[in-house]
Amino acid sequence: MKNKNLLRLAIAQINSTVGDLQGNAVKIIQYIEKAKNSDVDIICFPELALCGYPPEDLLLKPKFISDNIQALKNLTKSINGNLTAVVGFADGRFKETYNAAAIIYNGQIKGLYRKIFLPNYGVFDEKRYFSPGDESLVFGLGDFIFGVNICEDIWYPDGPTKSQAAAGAKLILNINASPYHMDKLKERQSVVVSQAKANSVFVVYANLIGGQDELLFDGQSMIVNNQGKLLAKAKAFAEDLLIQDLDIPASRANSSGKVVKIANILSGPKKNLVIREEPEILEPEAEIYQGLVLGLKDYVFKNGFKKVILGLSGGIDSSLVAALAVDALGNENVAGLFMPSRYTCSQSQEDAMSLAKNLGIKLTSISIEQIFRFYLLVLEPHFAGLGRDTTEENLQARIRGNILMAFSNKFGWLVLTTGNKSEMSTGYATLYGDMAGGFAVIKDVPKTLVYKLSRYRNSISQVIPERVFTKPPTAELKPNQLDQDILPPYGILDNILKAYVEKDNDLAKIIASGFDKETVCKVTDMVDKNEYKRRQSPPGIKITPKAFGRDWRMPITNKYKR
Amino acid sequence: MKNKNLLRLAIAQINSTVGDLQGNAVKIIQYIEKAKNSDVDIICFPELALCGYPPEDLLLKPKFISDNIQALKNLTKSINGNLTAVVGFADGRFKETYNAAAIIYNGQIKGLYRKIFLPNYGVFDEKRYFSPGDESLVFGLGDFIFGVNICEDIWYPDGPTKSQAAAGAKLILNINASPYHMDKLKERQSVVVSQAKANSVFVVYANLIGGQDELLFDGQSMIVNNQGKLLAKAKAFAEDLLIQDLDIPASRANSSGKVVKIANILSGPKKNLVIREEPEILEPEAEIYQGLVLGLKDYVFKNGFKKVILGLSGGIDSSLVAALAVDALGNENVAGLFMPSRYTCSQSQEDAMSLAKNLGIKLTSISIEQIFRFYLLVLEPHFAGLGRDTTEENLQARIRGNILMAFSNKFGWLVLTTGNKSEMSTGYATLYGDMAGGFAVIKDVPKTLVYKLSRYRNSISQVIPERVFTKPPTAELKPNQLDQDILPPYGILDNILKAYVEKDNDLAKIIASGFDKETVCKVTDMVDKNEYKRRQSPPGIKITPKAFGRDWRMPITNKYKR
Repeated sequence: MKNKNLLRLAIAQINSTVGDLQGNAVKIIQYIEKAKNSDVDIICFPELALCGYPPEDLLLKPKFISDNIQALKNLTKSINGNLTAVVGFADGRFKETYNAAAIIYNGQIKGLYRKIFLPNYGVFDEKRYFSPGDESLVFGLGDFIFGVNICEDIWYPDGPTKSQAAAGAKLILNINASPYHMDKLKERQSVVVSQAKANSVFVVYANLIGGQDELLFDGQSMIVNNQGKLLAKAKAFAEDLLIQDLDIPASRANSSGKVVKIANILSGPKKNLVIREEPEILEPEAEIYQGLVLGLKDYVFKNGFKKVILGLSGGIDSSLVAALAVDALGNENVAGLFMPSRYTCSQSQEDAMSLAKNLGIKLTSISIEQIFRFYLLVLEPHFAGLGRDTTEENLQARIRGNILMAFSNKFGWLVLTTGNKSEMSTGYATLYGDMAGGFAVIKDVPKTLVYKLSRYRNSISQVIPERVFTKPPTAELKPNQLDQDILPPYGILDNILKAYVEKDNDLAKIIASGFDKETVCKVTDMVDKNEYKRRQSPPGIKITPKAFGRDWRMPITNKYKR
Repeated sequence: MKNKNLLRLAIAQINSTVGDLQGNAVKIIQYIEKAKNSDVDIICFPELALCGYPPEDLLLKPKFISDNIQALKNLTKSINGNLTAVVGFADGRFKETYNAAAIIYNGQIKGLYRKIFLPNYGVFDEKRYFSPGDESLVFGLGDFIFGVNICEDIWYPDGPTKSQAAAGAKLILNINASPYHMDKLKERQSVVVSQAKANSVFVVYANLIGGQDELLFDGQSMIVNNQGKLLAKAKAFAEDLLIQDLDIPASRANSSGKVVKIANILSGPKKNLVIREEPEILEPEAEIYQGLVLGLKDYVFKNGFKKVILGLSGGIDSSLVAALAVDALGNENVAGLFMPSRYTCSQSQEDAMSLAKNLGIKLTSISIEQIFRFYLLVLEPHFAGLGRDTTEENLQARIRGNILMAFSNKFGWLVLTTGNKSEMSTGYATLYGDMAGGFAVIKDVPKTLVYKLSRYRNSISQVIPERVFTKPPTAELKPNQLDQDILPPYGILDNILKAYVEKDNDLAKIIASGFDKETVCKVTDMVDKNEYKRRQSPPGIKITPKAFGRDWRMPITNKYKR
């Protein structure tokens, strides 16, 4: 009934789990069944959808590669009928491993594409694992000719998109596992649009979603026509099956291009597509908040935990993490511990209690005072004549860490740490103290953004007490302590950190951009000196262009004076 | 007076420090002065000698690159007289960075070589930082023609050594920063010898020494003649200036080869060289022991510490680490803490005391019993009705960690952890407990090797009490506990771990090699499940082909079922 020049295309924006070959295969088959019910001609899955992304050093295990190839073979057998599936997997031949896509039709692998451009910067180590492919095949389905390529490939103007278009392709299926960071979507969209225009091709950008250790994949897959117009976009931070009819010109292979024929005809007459709502465009805070929720949820559940525990201090960081945890896991799966000492003021307790009440989570209160006193007693003869310093502050944080870990050990709950990126950068945190835990949810969130995200959360429902926003931040580890005794105001600190950590700017440049020299020296010195702490911190969710983790490989032993 | 065909060559096997541009330059000049006093014609420094190896993400800072180039320019000005120096540095041009060597003569850079083969496996990330060079220049000094290349370059039979030989070079100066692991020397020597023979060239293999975070560079530089005969070898794990007269055939550039002329003549008549003693060939345990001593010493001093503290339990691991620390730092710089609990037997105390006495270190004794009791008291209402488990064991280890860290905070001493590789692999250690500390000296030493190294140390002087070798290993965290309650015998465990961790063997292969299936499944399961602990462990010295650190990048979230 429909115009026979329409190609019905689907993006299966799935949440794969690294290493879960069988689980991922089951999920792929489920999406294929759904697509068949909608008369889809071609369905694309994300990069390495079958083995998860990034598998890191699992790729060095020969059996992992062969198991993943076997999983692909099994999967292939169960793909039949009038549908072409593009599935990412790790191909291995002659001792080389490739980041590959299989083009599957009617129980057979009709062709393979092997990623040509391998990213080896930032969080990426693809040259550690993969050999580059060297063929930009195009495929024929009825009168349509299309090319398949993978992630980084589309970022190069002279890459396979160009050669596939030259070989006659009018449609490019680019499958991705593109990690999220703020404003990444704009970068991607601009690349996809410019490739579509430059080569007069439709581009299907299929992305992964889900959390994998420090990485977060946001989905937001898209389809752009051959004039660069965005036709459709998939959800952010959720699985999605995006189906779209594409009015692609039929094409003939260029004489120089070899076309791998998949099938002579498309599937028959198609039911009309149900019109779907456009996914809402998220405001920056909403986007980050939803991302953190997904990253946390996936870390917890994919690692087999059911419940988390965290220390609530009455401060903004732990308040935000508690809210994120409740939104990710449900309030029945979040436990709060309030652990006052002699330095804890009554407002802190009130704020922690009212937060817990608003979130509907259980709050247990355990004083660290007696334990703290015994440490001091035992250490006294050895520290005789020496004044109080950070030693005693750290002890309090460590007692709290121990108590949290005791709950973790006893009940099997994961401990969430509550430190933010401003603290991680400057080392304003206690190793084995407030840094003790399995997952550091807001590790990559600067303090100023912590406030914004908290405001955003409260705009949905008022959970964080207003006073938490207005009182000055304090660690409460000694009398009348304030963060700003040690650190510059967070507004200034976060800007210096962004320039130094994320942009690799040197001191002169940062000072020239309008910051006080002494402050810049002090802050960058703190960053440099605290590498040893960061090396022992738990993983957390990357949301900025450069996070502490695979993205940041600084030596600890380092005498470079900037 | 000497045969004018002799070329006097020196290898300056120095201990550079990452980022210490000025300090490294001063050291380079000192070695050049020494070489001049011995009428040396050519002196070679290691790979990236000027900025240290590996600088990791410092290389992403544009100012680091320009500072290092400025340091090279300054250095060049102070190199004069009849001597050619080959100095490794990070070259940067047109936004590309190269792992380079400058060939310097008489205040001028006469030429550059840029590394062609960039390792990007194991601990190496060179493709993250460097672009590959594409020129294999040869240089002329009097009648001699030589080529320079860098580290990985010599491992490729069709690499620059071959093309430089084809262009007329009779001598190859290969500068290195080749990290140590057991048996690495044999591999290197075999490559150097085969290149020398295949291309009829003398090969000068100049290596770095020193510790840099987890990496250890062993030196053991060597000179091989054009028949593959080893002419001279530098010290292991110590700075050295190896000078050797080489009877190299004069050569003429191949018509196809362009020769960069450095000088028309060699330096004049030379004083005779003082005959130096051949460095002793180290037995495996001696080699590893000396390596650990250097790695520890460099980590401590390069990071600005003067003194270390560690917990002594009376067991073999902490005994070995204490001995290593004393040998690295002097007994005045090592403090021991004995921290008994209700489960500590009297033999443990006796053994810790006699070890401390033998090593001449101060031993402080602090009971954790009272603090432990208070934790139990405080937690009791929350754990009501639940039995004792690892929660209470971990608490003891964490109290000890806190006390060690309190000493560290109060006195500025570095805490050494004492866990071995068998524990690191299986997770038989307490996060934030015995894993708390700045440097994990024997992190890459399997338990069976811990015993061998301890025996070796005792063969020099009897410091570790005999009973420490014979009593069964125990963590003493509950009554009558033995390591072997949880772990298979260490002889079996270590072999399974070697196959699984270092060789990436799959389970079927490990079982087929003669291990019990149940044991193999249990052990490999423990390895997989404890990735989160390893991710938060302090760095330690790599001595095996695959250590936990930059060498091992496994996902935490990982559902692969082997």
